[in-house]
Amino acid sequence: MDHASHRYENVAKLYQSSGDRTEKDLLGEKQVPHTAYYGIQTLRALENFDISGITLNFYPDVIRGFAKVKKAAALANNDLQNIPDNVCASICQACDEITMGMLHNHFIVDMIQGGAGTSTNMNANEVIANRALEIMGYQRGEYAYCHPNNHVNCSQSTNDAYPTAMKVALLDANDELIQVVQQLIVAFDDKAHAFADILKMGRTQLQDAVPMTMGQSFKAFASSLRNEVERLKISALSFHKVNMGGTAIGTGLNANAKYRERVIQHLSRVTGREITLAEDLIEATHDTGAFVMYSSALKQLAVKLSKICNDLRLLSSGPRAGLNEINLPPMQPGSSIMPGKVNPVIPEVVNQIAYKVIGNDLTITHAAEAGQLELNVMEPVMIESVFESLEILKNGMQSLAERCVEGITVNEEVCESYVKNSIGIVTALNPYLGYEICTMLAKEALENNRSVYDLVLEKELMSKVALDDALAPENMVNS
Amino acid sequence: MDHASHRYENVAKLYQSSGDRTEKDLLGEKQVPHTAYYGIQTLRALENFDISGITLNFYPDVIRGFAKVKKAAALANNDLQNIPDNVCASICQACDEITMGMLHNHFIVDMIQGGAGTSTNMNANEVIANRALEIMGYQRGEYAYCHPNNHVNCSQSTNDAYPTAMKVALLDANDELIQVVQQLIVAFDDKAHAFADILKMGRTQLQDAVPMTMGQSFKAFASSLRNEVERLKISALSFHKVNMGGTAIGTGLNANAKYRERVIQHLSRVTGREITLAEDLIEATHDTGAFVMYSSALKQLAVKLSKICNDLRLLSSGPRAGLNEINLPPMQPGSSIMPGKVNPVIPEVVNQIAYKVIGNDLTITHAAEAGQLELNVMEPVMIESVFESLEILKNGMQSLAERCVEGITVNEEVCESYVKNSIGIVTALNPYLGYEICTMLAKEALENNRSVYDLVLEKELMSKVALDDALAPENMVNS
Amino acid sequence: MDHASHRYENVAKLYQSSGDRTEKDLLGEKQVPHTAYYGIQTLRALENFDISGITLNFYPDVIRGFAKVKKAAALANNDLQNIPDNVCASICQACDEITMGMLHNHFIVDMIQGGAGTSTNMNANEVIANRALEIMGYQRGEYAYCHPNNHVNCSQSTNDAYPTAMKVALLDANDELIQVVQQLIVAFDDKAHAFADILKMGRTQLQDAVPMTMGQSFKAFASSLRNEVERLKISALSFHKVNMGGTAIGTGLNANAKYRERVIQHLSRVTGREITLAEDLIEATHDTGAFVMYSSALKQLAVKLSKICNDLRLLSSGPRAGLNEINLPPMQPGSSIMPGKVNPVIPEVVNQIAYKVIGNDLTITHAAEAGQLELNVMEPVMIESVFESLEILKNGMQSLAERCVEGITVNEEVCESYVKNSIGIVTALNPYLGYEICTMLAKEALENNRSVYDLVLEKELMSKVALDDALAPENMVNS
Amino acid sequence: MDHASHRYENVAKLYQSSGDRTEKDLLGEKQVPHTAYYGIQTLRALENFDISGITLNFYPDVIRGFAKVKKAAALANNDLQNIPDNVCASICQACDEITMGMLHNHFIVDMIQGGAGTSTNMNANEVIANRALEIMGYQRGEYAYCHPNNHVNCSQSTNDAYPTAMKVALLDANDELIQVVQQLIVAFDDKAHAFADILKMGRTQLQDAVPMTMGQSFKAFASSLRNEVERLKISALSFHKVNMGGTAIGTGLNANAKYRERVIQHLSRVTGREITLAEDLIEATHDTGAFVMYSSALKQLAVKLSKICNDLRLLSSGPRAGLNEINLPPMQPGSSIMPGKVNPVIPEVVNQIAYKVIGNDLTITHAAEAGQLELNVMEPVMIESVFESLEILKNGMQSLAERCVEGITVNEEVCESYVKNSIGIVTALNPYLGYEICTMLAKEALENNRSVYDLVLEKELMSKVALDDALAPENMVNS
Repeated sequence: MDHASHRYENVAKLYQSSGDRTEKDLLGEKQVPHTAYYGIQTLRALENFDISGITLNFYPDVIRGFAKVKKAAALANNDLQNIPDNVCASICQACDEITMGMLHNHFIVDMIQGGAGTSTNMNANEVIANRALEIMGYQRGEYAYCHPNNHVNCSQSTNDAYPTAMKVALLDANDELIQVVQQLIVAFDDKAHAFADILKMGRTQLQDAVPMTMGQSFKAFASSLRNEVERLKISALSFHKVNMGGTAIGTGLNANAKYRERVIQHLSRVTGREITLAEDLIEATHDTGAFVMYSSALKQLAVKLSKICNDLRLLSSGPRAGLNEINLPPMQPGSSIMPGKVNPVIPEVVNQIAYKVIGNDLTITHAAEAGQLELNVMEPVMIESVFESLEILKNGMQSLAERCVEGITVNEEVCESYVKNSIGIVTALNPYLGYEICTMLAKEALENNRSVYDLVLEKELMSKVALDDALAPENMVNS
Repeated sequence: MDHASHRYENVAKLYQSSGDRTEKDLLGEKQVPHTAYYGIQTLRALENFDISGITLNFYPDVIRGFAKVKKAAALANNDLQNIPDNVCASICQACDEITMGMLHNHFIVDMIQGGAGTSTNMNANEVIANRALEIMGYQRGEYAYCHPNNHVNCSQSTNDAYPTAMKVALLDANDELIQVVQQLIVAFDDKAHAFADILKMGRTQLQDAVPMTMGQSFKAFASSLRNEVERLKISALSFHKVNMGGTAIGTGLNANAKYRERVIQHLSRVTGREITLAEDLIEATHDTGAFVMYSSALKQLAVKLSKICNDLRLLSSGPRAGLNEINLPPMQPGSSIMPGKVNPVIPEVVNQIAYKVIGNDLTITHAAEAGQLELNVMEPVMIESVFESLEILKNGMQSLAERCVEGITVNEEVCESYVKNSIGIVTALNPYLGYEICTMLAKEALENNRSVYDLVLEKELMSKVALDDALAPENMVNS
Repeated sequence: MDHASHRYENVAKLYQSSGDRTEKDLLGEKQVPHTAYYGIQTLRALENFDISGITLNFYPDVIRGFAKVKKAAALANNDLQNIPDNVCASICQACDEITMGMLHNHFIVDMIQGGAGTSTNMNANEVIANRALEIMGYQRGEYAYCHPNNHVNCSQSTNDAYPTAMKVALLDANDELIQVVQQLIVAFDDKAHAFADILKMGRTQLQDAVPMTMGQSFKAFASSLRNEVERLKISALSFHKVNMGGTAIGTGLNANAKYRERVIQHLSRVTGREITLAEDLIEATHDTGAFVMYSSALKQLAVKLSKICNDLRLLSSGPRAGLNEINLPPMQPGSSIMPGKVNPVIPEVVNQIAYKVIGNDLTITHAAEAGQLELNVMEPVMIESVFESLEILKNGMQSLAERCVEGITVNEEVCESYVKNSIGIVTALNPYLGYEICTMLAKEALENNRSVYDLVLEKELMSKVALDDALAPENMVNS
Repeated sequence: MDHASHRYENVAKLYQSSGDRTEKDLLGEKQVPHTAYYGIQTLRALENFDISGITLNFYPDVIRGFAKVKKAAALANNDLQNIPDNVCASICQACDEITMGMLHNHFIVDMIQGGAGTSTNMNANEVIANRALEIMGYQRGEYAYCHPNNHVNCSQSTNDAYPTAMKVALLDANDELIQVVQQLIVAFDDKAHAFADILKMGRTQLQDAVPMTMGQSFKAFASSLRNEVERLKISALSFHKVNMGGTAIGTGLNANAKYRERVIQHLSRVTGREITLAEDLIEATHDTGAFVMYSSALKQLAVKLSKICNDLRLLSSGPRAGLNEINLPPMQPGSSIMPGKVNPVIPEVVNQIAYKVIGNDLTITHAAEAGQLELNVMEPVMIESVFESLEILKNGMQSLAERCVEGITVNEEVCESYVKNSIGIVTALNPYLGYEICTMLAKEALENNRSVYDLVLEKELMSKVALDDALAPENMVNS
């Protein structure tokens, strides 16, 4: 503690508070509004990065991720006597308040920023420092008593704190996402049960194939998403591995091995998750593979949702000049000119969400490839993109479940008539008649607008009993 | 006019106003806040599309584009006596107010939406209708006197009004973008002049090549962007071709040939641009090629900006363990842990913008490919993405010009010493000594840490006079 | 000519020929097969780049592009007395032979290669030099009399010769592509005429909209592609602008202004095109914008083809459980298990081609962004990708025209019955009854499975005469 | 067996053999060369899909995958008495021969094809059937005794056999890929040990950061790839889950539950892997998620390789006007004009491979999204793209290991001098002097071209002993 208390006195004289306070950094002084919890570096970031209009507080998980990491660091620093007890306690309280949702409107830096997240990290450091100062009874800006860099950021670099905070945030966000995927799975499963006995034609390559049930279609949607829940969980596993303590480039300069151990323990406790330290901190500092693979999993989810929505739109096409097998619940008038038209607007918006997620995945890929030497400076746009994808996927899937799938009904008679008229059922006769003869039957049925059933009997290829058995729906849909 | 006035009376009884007004559509009734200029369909869209949080009023050009199209349509409808004079005048006034920036906070639908833009179109129709009603002295909601569909949307479908409005908006946005590109070109040109006489090594494949001037480097940046100004202008040309009058699918149902001619004339006057009618309205209704190619041009611009920013970051690497040829103006402290570190944050954010634009281009490509039959229902996400790209490109390039390029300085002595020590200058001796002998000279210079100049003299391969002439910088950088 | 002849003698002793000849470069010696026209640098490239298995001779246009550029350079060098008459004549003859299709099997370097195209350029230099030696009566490998670098590559660098040759190649390839697009346009136009009078339902958002003709659908496909012919031509314009004479980095070291002028003139003559010199040679050396934008145009073409093929597959879905409006000619049995099934295999392969082209466009984008300082070293993968896209697009479109579109037939009665049963025709009554009343009619028709026509008469909303007139197909499809 | 033997007789008369044999299918007859093992459907595919020039035999794993699946199916069919013993034995022998590398030149269908892989499946069915016929002593084409569909394809559809064969192929290909990744890891690890004690500057954002060792850099490359080995293994796990027995759409029509069980057991034995049946066969038939996620893993590997190669190129930049910290082994002369120039051609080609893999991943994504209803017909382009990515990644990584990494040397004195001159080492004084004072020291050092070390002593901020300790390299690189 000796050299630490020494350095704070050196700094003390740099600061005084009065109305709009003056803050100072490497580049000079600036006036900070006295209402602001953030400080000079946040102000500089505001000027430098007026880019997307999407600020940190657009994504509360991001802010909470930082609060948790800063709390864990403060506790570890306190364990090692790098910061005094009262400073630690105040930082922790500030972090808890932020985790509970307070002060979010002071996180105002643009999500897309240069500096590899330094501005985000400093925005957090400044807000936490100033809130901690208040808690201790000091004025905001009296950084001698709790300094954004020396205390809040103690033993840390942006290069370890930022990706760690983002990983913590993504673990939370992934949990929320999975909950919505599961809501959607339930919606599809419910329909799978409801439609279990409705026979319909299966189609491959948009051509009539062989019969199945509508329940099987909806069950397949659920199964497909269920696999993604697993993939999301597996992909998120790598977020548990962090580089706290690696500081600037992973050598851990200014943060010793004991600190690493402690901060990981505290972070595990604070987050309620099993956080571990990356094996190679140099690599962990510049690698962004965890984000890339998680985005791939989001993209995969998007691809599946898009396929499902394409199917829903196709099956509900019509009402009279389309397949018309299912009805989506009407959500709004479909046209400003065509009266009575109702469109599948919810699947349509989910399709578009999917394209946006696919685009974001490319942004992330490109940003990942741009890492250089000891750091990937493009992390902020990766973070912005992955959170945008998460947000719109969650919103879209919830809409899809509640405003579409739950209200779907089937036009049973339409489905049935397709099966009855189908030529594809000839496939079921392959084992009895062979591929060539069946081919000729199919050809004749199509050309003469006949039914396969009649032709088989007429040509005395099978007995009626055998034929009825071969074509019994229950035999065809689940042999 | 006869059947028109008839139909309004039919409708009149459907509406009454009192406090929060009740509005009604195909799906039933809803309460609309009495302060709202929008109506029931906007409300439904709010419920259905709680997706991205980015609403129409995030992009004022989008709103203005609609105001101009609706005004032109009103004038054309009035010419053809589809709507009465006072209704037309009120609609026009409402549109003018919106063009001037009023009522934008009533455009609240999410940019990403199902329904192919119907909700955006209806948001505009409703706001304009209600404002027009006010102007005429009626209450909002008294749609018998000015109806969102029957009057404001008269002779239109979303499928012609929406893409046309977006094209008008993009013409404006493109002008704004080009202005910023030109600001950046000027910044690079200024540096090209300032650095015209500073000799430096050219590098190919990151290996020392042959000499050039720093001015040439910066002139090349300017040239490269200058080409893009041309490409942007060419790409935007196709936005002048619109499908107004095609209505639902391009057959022009409910809008005759006279209307088409008129609305194009009015739209040209209202926008001050030479708007023309697409040759094939069926095709023009479902084709989104103009958006795809414009996005390609934005992507191309992004690629170039990213390359330039990579170069700026590379040339300013250091200060002591990098190339250190140029200095970028410091914008903010670079590190939360490394004191004195200043990072190239502005080029870095422009790189990230480029990746986002590249991602958006993919989103647009994917959405374009998803068009089906007579319409591409995915237009909203294309519009959202192209406007996001425009916005961040504009902001990023302005930052780049003002916060980076204008303040760049050169470390002349560093540049000079690279040239002096270079082996690459041996290339200039090819015409005198041939490729093989020069190859051997280069090899020897590198292996023995010698200078090419000394070796040539030592081996008596050329006279000093001839050698000095061959290696004179003015001969090398601009032969 | 004096110093030139001098240097060749220096080199002469380096080479002797006998059986497999020995060649030598900066890195040492290698045995070259005596049958080979290529030399040591091609051999090294073979070892270094065993990557994709796709060699230069996969794309004859690439080889021809080089032959033309090398011929133009030889002529310009001869004009300026950089190379003797007989050497020039022999190089020109060698180049002519290659242009006519000879010696292509000696262009064996992998299309994907490091070195920014140096290996491709040296493969060309070596083959041309050895063939020229033969023509002059020398042995292959006697480079004193015609040297790959000193003569064939005289006044050139890979950095100007390679992109110029590729631009020449792309101009040829673009002409070939456009020819196939036009073949496909003709196929669609023919069908547009044939189907001009067949009424069918238009569909927006896959929902029944309003009537149109099948001819209009096919005319729209033709129109859509016709626009792309224009875009391809415009995009290819920038290939006329080359950087010959810029040599290594655009400063033109070793190639004076007179040479530039001459080589451009000769290249124009050799190619029969109006080739011009880029304004800023520094920029032109490292910029790859022309390739990026051309690839964007290919991607746009791919997107349109994919949309068209999706439509063809959708309209031909069935035969009994689909839309079944059109029939694609059967090309092969569709299934290994389902007898009689015929699938839309040609549109399907074109869809896949489109995805590959979209992927290649991304590869090119990524490669373009990776340019650094005075060169973009990633050009080879851009070239490989753009030629792959060209090749598969050409093949796919030809298949689509000949094996699909030309054989399409329409099921008229199916199309008609959709129109007759449609509710969407109520839109045509908007001008008479207003949007609200039409909405109610549509709703009632749908819910009670009634026809709009009957309901209007039953409710006495219009006279039969007026109604028939409003719903006359000729009025609806082309008002 | 009864009805089976019956059906073969029906068919027998359809075929006779003589010279070029005549084969027949749904669409008519064709002459098949008598030397061909393939049959009529392969011929049709040749005509229909003259697309990319890349045929099945370009990727032997693809052919072997089919041979294994067909063998397993034959054994299962024989177990259930669907095919006779001698037919089964002959099919198995044919499959074994193909697995050993024979007959590959008869797999000639284009990798990119319509029909969802039917042509590939039929190419395999036909080659195997004809070879089996030969083994049994029949003529090729005597399909009554062993029929491509009735015997070789018995109980299968393309829709289960094709994806299953591709998964088997990818399991093999993934093993081969991992072997090459591991070769590259070893190469990096060797260098990590060799360079363990060489101090160098770490750089973040291309700006001097804090010291590290060159060994740490190379160890990080190895670590980064090691993580990918795990990801590849995890991603490939889902290839073990197949849909054999689902037949056309997953309902298993023509293949009962017993068959499923048996074919999975046999396939496990034949492949030596633990193959399992998908839970939901409907979903498994149309879902392509396993390919998408595996391609994501390949893309991730590509991104990392590209980052590593960018670093290698950056660190080896120079020799005199670059960072010049490491030397890559020279592989070929670097320039056709600049003598003595040696370029980093191997990393450059790996960068380009990465861009191609990223492009292929997009192709796969797009194709996956295009699945419709019970099938994804775009699988062939997914397969083509994933195998292309695998092939070029393997080739590129092997080149990178053998032709680059293994020969890398370090310029120790250059690395050292960067550290000595660095300002970044001031970071190590943060714990003693605080962030502000260190900031001022850094600023003064930079502006006055001084060393931090001297300034600290001059200002008496620390004792020499304490300072030396704080700045000791061993303390800095591994605190």
